[in-house]
Amino acid sequence: MPRYAFRIEYDGRPFAGWQRQDGPASVQQTVEEALRALEPDMGSIAAAGRTDAGVHATGQVAHADLSRDWGAFRLSEALNWHLKPAPVAVTACTRVDDDWHARFSALERRYTFRIIARRAPLALDAGHAWRVIGPLDVDAMRAGATRLIGHHDFTTFRASICQAKSPVKTLDEITLTESPYPGGQDIRIHLRARSFLHNQVRSIAGTLERVGAGAWSPDRVAEALEARDRAACGPVSPPDGLVLTGVGYPNDPFAD
Amino acid sequence: MPRYAFRIEYDGRPFAGWQRQDGPASVQQTVEEALRALEPDMGSIAAAGRTDAGVHATGQVAHADLSRDWGAFRLSEALNWHLKPAPVAVTACTRVDDDWHARFSALERRYTFRIIARRAPLALDAGHAWRVIGPLDVDAMRAGATRLIGHHDFTTFRASICQAKSPVKTLDEITLTESPYPGGQDIRIHLRARSFLHNQVRSIAGTLERVGAGAWSPDRVAEALEARDRAACGPVSPPDGLVLTGVGYPNDPFAD
Repeated sequence: MPRYAFRIEYDGRPFAGWQRQDGPASVQQTVEEALRALEPDMGSIAAAGRTDAGVHATGQVAHADLSRDWGAFRLSEALNWHLKPAPVAVTACTRVDDDWHARFSALERRYTFRIIARRAPLALDAGHAWRVIGPLDVDAMRAGATRLIGHHDFTTFRASICQAKSPVKTLDEITLTESPYPGGQDIRIHLRARSFLHNQVRSIAGTLERVGAGAWSPDRVAEALEARDRAACGPVSPPDGLVLTGVGYPNDPFAD
Repeated sequence: MPRYAFRIEYDGRPFAGWQRQDGPASVQQTVEEALRALEPDMGSIAAAGRTDAGVHATGQVAHADLSRDWGAFRLSEALNWHLKPAPVAVTACTRVDDDWHARFSALERRYTFRIIARRAPLALDAGHAWRVIGPLDVDAMRAGATRLIGHHDFTTFRASICQAKSPVKTLDEITLTESPYPGGQDIRIHLRARSFLHNQVRSIAGTLERVGAGAWSPDRVAEALEARDRAACGPVSPPDGLVLTGVGYPNDPFAD
């Protein structure tokens, strides 16, 4: 059974999240159905990041075992044809070794959370950013973000339903960029870690928004982290601004 | 009757275009209805750019005469409340002189046309970019674009239904930027002129795409322009990638 890796892009709005479940369609189900149109006996696929409902991806990675020996180009073309009209696209596809695993071989996940701070509602980027009234002090947000870098017990920034064995994670990067936006600010928080806890990015984004708004001091972020108490977290942001932008592997399977 | 200027953002997809007409709702109609919720006897509004169906705006400018003396902040808040849930937002609002006119006082219009060149369909930016298979040679597109700068008879790049008195226009700027995009290229064509002919930007974008794809030489753009013949134009691009990003006035009415 040859194994294939896929880089997958999706608009998270119509989906129940990545993971297959009862109820509304998941992205996983949608991709599996497209694969079953090619190979009816196909099993299930595994992905690097289990994104929540409404969360987007430009760089999700998943793998599947197929019975036929597909050319990678033909396979991605056929999948994209069967994925229509769902807002899901395979943007890269390659054959990988049988022991390569989209989730367990991954060395890092990269997420971007986008906040647009302005009075007016969003017309063009609705669903693709968290709009807050603002304005936000981005330097204060940076000062708060710095407190979270490194190896910590992230219990404060973890959903109560999180199933990870340990709340201890290493946050390798958290940087903020700001660009002008009509009537306000377009702020992106870039995060990178080997893995994240459930709701960790949205908990951090919601907390840093409080810092930007002046309601929290940057020091309070460190205090919240040290409290190791979910109740010390700021409000969890909505999913709208969150994008899984990439997954890192020892050797990039999609490199030319 | 105090006159107010509005900067308006919209997602063009659900609309018949800016202009009021029979059939599906126009953006103009949508804004006028929100204004009539505040002042039932309000007349009609005038805008700087009459964007086509499916064309977006981050910087459309319009004006309206109202009978009450509104505070600009309160007026924009009330309008955004009444505009919901349409993907239209007022991002700036100000009182202007009685002889100030959104269309006739304008000194320049700025448009951006976005092309994403990649094999896979668009999942996240569907409707917000023209997706072509690509790849595109952006330097060749730049060389072709340069041929269009300046004062010319743009008959070749003008819709047959264009109602402008003269096909002679001055294109002040046409620059291209390129950034990476998952599985391809994200190319933006930025154009600036006092005014544009009907379909001029989409005719130029469609022609430059042919140059980028290698089907046309950059010189052929100059030949097409000199032909002053609609039949010499490349294919007209779809509206998806087009955004009216701004309108210039002798004094920016929205400056603080």
